[in-house]
Amino acid sequence: MKYPEHMIALINALRCLPGVGNKTAERYAFQMLEWEPHDLAVLAQTVGTLHEKTKFCSECGCLMDDEECEYCVSDKRDRSTICVVSNIREVFAIEQMGEYRGVYHVLGGLLSPMDGITPEVLRVESLLDRFQNTQVKEVVIALDSTLEGDATALYLNKELAELPVKVTRLAFGIPMGSSLDYIDGGTLAYALSGRTTMGG
Amino acid sequence: MKYPEHMIALINALRCLPGVGNKTAERYAFQMLEWEPHDLAVLAQTVGTLHEKTKFCSECGCLMDDEECEYCVSDKRDRSTICVVSNIREVFAIEQMGEYRGVYHVLGGLLSPMDGITPEVLRVESLLDRFQNTQVKEVVIALDSTLEGDATALYLNKELAELPVKVTRLAFGIPMGSSLDYIDGGTLAYALSGRTTMGG
Repeated sequence: MKYPEHMIALINALRCLPGVGNKTAERYAFQMLEWEPHDLAVLAQTVGTLHEKTKFCSECGCLMDDEECEYCVSDKRDRSTICVVSNIREVFAIEQMGEYRGVYHVLGGLLSPMDGITPEVLRVESLLDRFQNTQVKEVVIALDSTLEGDATALYLNKELAELPVKVTRLAFGIPMGSSLDYIDGGTLAYALSGRTTMGG
Repeated sequence: MKYPEHMIALINALRCLPGVGNKTAERYAFQMLEWEPHDLAVLAQTVGTLHEKTKFCSECGCLMDDEECEYCVSDKRDRSTICVVSNIREVFAIEQMGEYRGVYHVLGGLLSPMDGITPEVLRVESLLDRFQNTQVKEVVIALDSTLEGDATALYLNKELAELPVKVTRLAFGIPMGSSLDYIDGGTLAYALSGRTTMGG
């Protein structure tokens, strides 16, 4: 007993999605059998033309809707603050918050020499280039709090040390709405050492 | 702040997948941005040609790899036993088990008048037609143990009552490897009333 060839091809293609294993891919594929032809065509078309339809800003690496990057060109953004993120999606997460008015720089990943992700692979060179043309006052490092995120943050801090720029990193601490019972010791230690005075 | 148009189109298309909401669709879409063009092309092509490349057996409704249904045509299958399932995927689940040697009949859903799924929509007529040509001894109803599954099973039992055929349904009881603590009362009651004598 095995699936028809075309189903196997579809299942294998779906398995490339993040967090999708054999079971989920099978579920998706069998569900698709029941889709309207139009819906299948729309998905096929949007997937197939994804690369040609998406454009990235050559300066900051963000997704562009038109020919211009809405962050780099807008006169409402403060170009003296650069927020460094690892991937494009994080730009949208930060924008959704609505509190940040600076510009971005997408690294395109986190340092992980074991996986071949060295500083040369990341957009570090183009970050340093930005200091040539613009007066940058602050670089906000908004990277994951993981081994790779920490390594990348330390590396960037070292690279930027020579430049007259303030380098900051997002605060560590207890996530909003969470119970202390579920917080690991490392986070708790950070939260304690970074405790703030409460207003009277 | 919003995603470029093409990303929105892709995210909306991905949201049609079962169990995929906005967040997951976004995750898939952004991951796809990093895929190789070849992988995107393969997914687009397999999705786009899904309907034309998949063929269903006109008799049992199963997926066919070639021009013939491997179940209906094979002389290793017992055509006097028909297992009724709601969708194609369940055929593969039962085949994987490797214990069933009869043939199948895919209903294409479960009765749910509220959603417009009436007996006419399901492949009930074609199930009854099969009794014309073949000597069917047993119909094994392998449907979900849900409200819709029970309704469909009762309906089929009623439809088949006039025919000289044994109608059976999969046994209810405690799933293998599960703890009694987590079993609901209904299942437990079924398991008790259906208890079997242990061999000495």
